[in-house]
Amino acid sequence: MSVYLDNAASTALVPAALAAMTDAWGRPGNPMSLHDAGRQSRRLLEESRETIAGCVGARPSEVICTSGGTEADNLAVKGIYRARRAADDRRRRLVISAVEHHAVLDPAQWLADHEGAELVILPVDHTGRVDPADLRAELEAHPGQVALISVMWANNEVGTCQPIAELAALAREHDVPMHSDAVAAVGHVPVDYAASGLSAMSLSAHKFGGPQGVGALVLGRDVAAESLAHGGGHERDLRSGTQNVAGVAGMAAALRGAVEAMAANTAAVTALADRLVAGLTAIEGATVNSGDHGLPGLVHVSFAGCQGDSLLMLLDARGVQCSTGSACTAGVASASHVLLAMGMDRAAARGSLRLSLGPDNTAGDVDQALTALGEVLDRARAAGLTGVR
Amino acid sequence: MSVYLDNAASTALVPAALAAMTDAWGRPGNPMSLHDAGRQSRRLLEESRETIAGCVGARPSEVICTSGGTEADNLAVKGIYRARRAADDRRRRLVISAVEHHAVLDPAQWLADHEGAELVILPVDHTGRVDPADLRAELEAHPGQVALISVMWANNEVGTCQPIAELAALAREHDVPMHSDAVAAVGHVPVDYAASGLSAMSLSAHKFGGPQGVGALVLGRDVAAESLAHGGGHERDLRSGTQNVAGVAGMAAALRGAVEAMAANTAAVTALADRLVAGLTAIEGATVNSGDHGLPGLVHVSFAGCQGDSLLMLLDARGVQCSTGSACTAGVASASHVLLAMGMDRAAARGSLRLSLGPDNTAGDVDQALTALGEVLDRARAAGLTGVR
Repeated sequence: MSVYLDNAASTALVPAALAAMTDAWGRPGNPMSLHDAGRQSRRLLEESRETIAGCVGARPSEVICTSGGTEADNLAVKGIYRARRAADDRRRRLVISAVEHHAVLDPAQWLADHEGAELVILPVDHTGRVDPADLRAELEAHPGQVALISVMWANNEVGTCQPIAELAALAREHDVPMHSDAVAAVGHVPVDYAASGLSAMSLSAHKFGGPQGVGALVLGRDVAAESLAHGGGHERDLRSGTQNVAGVAGMAAALRGAVEAMAANTAAVTALADRLVAGLTAIEGATVNSGDHGLPGLVHVSFAGCQGDSLLMLLDARGVQCSTGSACTAGVASASHVLLAMGMDRAAARGSLRLSLGPDNTAGDVDQALTALGEVLDRARAAGLTGVR
Repeated sequence: MSVYLDNAASTALVPAALAAMTDAWGRPGNPMSLHDAGRQSRRLLEESRETIAGCVGARPSEVICTSGGTEADNLAVKGIYRARRAADDRRRRLVISAVEHHAVLDPAQWLADHEGAELVILPVDHTGRVDPADLRAELEAHPGQVALISVMWANNEVGTCQPIAELAALAREHDVPMHSDAVAAVGHVPVDYAASGLSAMSLSAHKFGGPQGVGALVLGRDVAAESLAHGGGHERDLRSGTQNVAGVAGMAAALRGAVEAMAANTAAVTALADRLVAGLTAIEGATVNSGDHGLPGLVHVSFAGCQGDSLLMLLDARGVQCSTGSACTAGVASASHVLLAMGMDRAAARGSLRLSLGPDNTAGDVDQALTALGEVLDRARAAGLTGVR
């Protein structure tokens, strides 16, 4: 029986989400159509939007449905940057943290390469956390020149949560919009958009039990952003294209379930994570990197003298499924930019695994993973670190 | 019992698509993950891609999965235009037809407004068809200056199919990439990408029995295009974001079903359309605009002295669901640009209905629609044409 410890890559669809989608598919309808079927479809879309908004402390009109976290991040980073710079061409600086997901990092780099954005990378400490003093220094050193700040709510590789409220307060003080990629956080830790002080925030359904291909950008009504997808004018004219009504209904059902069960799930996965960490720290040469300000259930560990890829494949052969970091860069044989930014050396970074627990996991899963690790570590170490770059 | 005659806006999900999606959701997995669950997810994604490719005469590597037709159109229009112009800055002309969907029209207009594209609109005849001679004249008058041509395969409002192969041959002769929005065509008429000579082609699952929020851009391996969504480098690095594996599987199942049943479905909806047209032509003041080179099952009709919106709402109250044109512009109280381009005057254009039949419709549905029309026409005419613009 295989053990799935890669919930941070993609969760299983929860039954409530499947039920909501199956119900939605029971009747056809385009939510833009004016007839009864269209209005029913629109009603389901808007009710789902209300549910999503309620779960993250936003107003329904602030929820822009997208095809996932990557699209939401692209819309926020490019859309807000372009609008802000169009309004004031002196605002060319784009401030992000060193540990952003590629869905923020790559559009930011694209703006730097193609549209003259001045990319500013905020460093992180050894736990992966941004120091608000660094953001303050940047804003004070370059008054009127920052177009957008984007700092993730929680890191997808090591689980570190950022001091979002402090950072957002600084952004507001300097009248700079701030976005946060909250894809790894929403459904796992309390996320309140209104209380956060953020201008925009991304989320993705398949990280909290909803379907793949559905997400949202929470965007304040007063935050100017340029659309990336034109045609039809859906979603406040910010994201054209017929809405995925069933998918949004599935996202809403999954999110409501995750938020309602958050306390219980957090307790359960924290107990499992503690058990896993206790087992890992007993292994010679193992260093647990997650923990401080971390997401519940996410355990990140490095093994001296090993390649994470080798460990991953050997564990997989024993039915234990985990990852070396972001699924989006799986197969890329280079050390994670997140770990390097945290000050880890390349060899240690390459010898890392992410084990992410979900509410469906059991103590038996943890024990099976620890047993399998014990069996494969020697072989992985024998395979050594050839090919590190 | 209500009668759904708006299949061109959105079809009902076919059981085969629901089954494929439910099966996919039976196991979690991110298709980028390296472990067994990830590989299974990836396998399902690639098998679905093969099915889709096979159904439209493409190679699997030419199918770029997107969140729908609008995203595919945006990627084609902006992505190919930008790449072509980046390679040769003299190529600034962007040639589209006058009857394109807003998902092509709006990104094209955006490029004209923001990036200096010179927008060229090819006229259509009274049936909505482009004359290849007009494209030839444009290409010969502006050698080396056209970056991209985009002409839809079949019109979403009146059903007119374009002479795609002739147009694509001209494009190739002048070494200009040509895209076609085939959203209304795929699954309804034979569409063969390789035989068409096109460089790129868009499709959308919810137009042929698949789920909303899923589509594809078929794009030749040798056609340069800039990505609009940056992140993990999914889909040939042209469309980042975790793929909607279940949705793509649903799209594949629906498309296979539509293609396998195309002959039978075409015969069935054509018989129904003939019955509907016979009934409509017996109504005084009714003019059927669809027919020549048309999609099977799509009937477009104008009623002298009526507003289509009034008719639509009165019919809806009698359980007959149809539209005045594109669902994406429903509620917009202006005459359709498609009908105006076909030479229809504003009043006639405003008095139009689109009735789109699917394989689930029956002769009884047609008769119910005709009866309801007979009942409401007088009232709609009494409401008159106030507010036409």
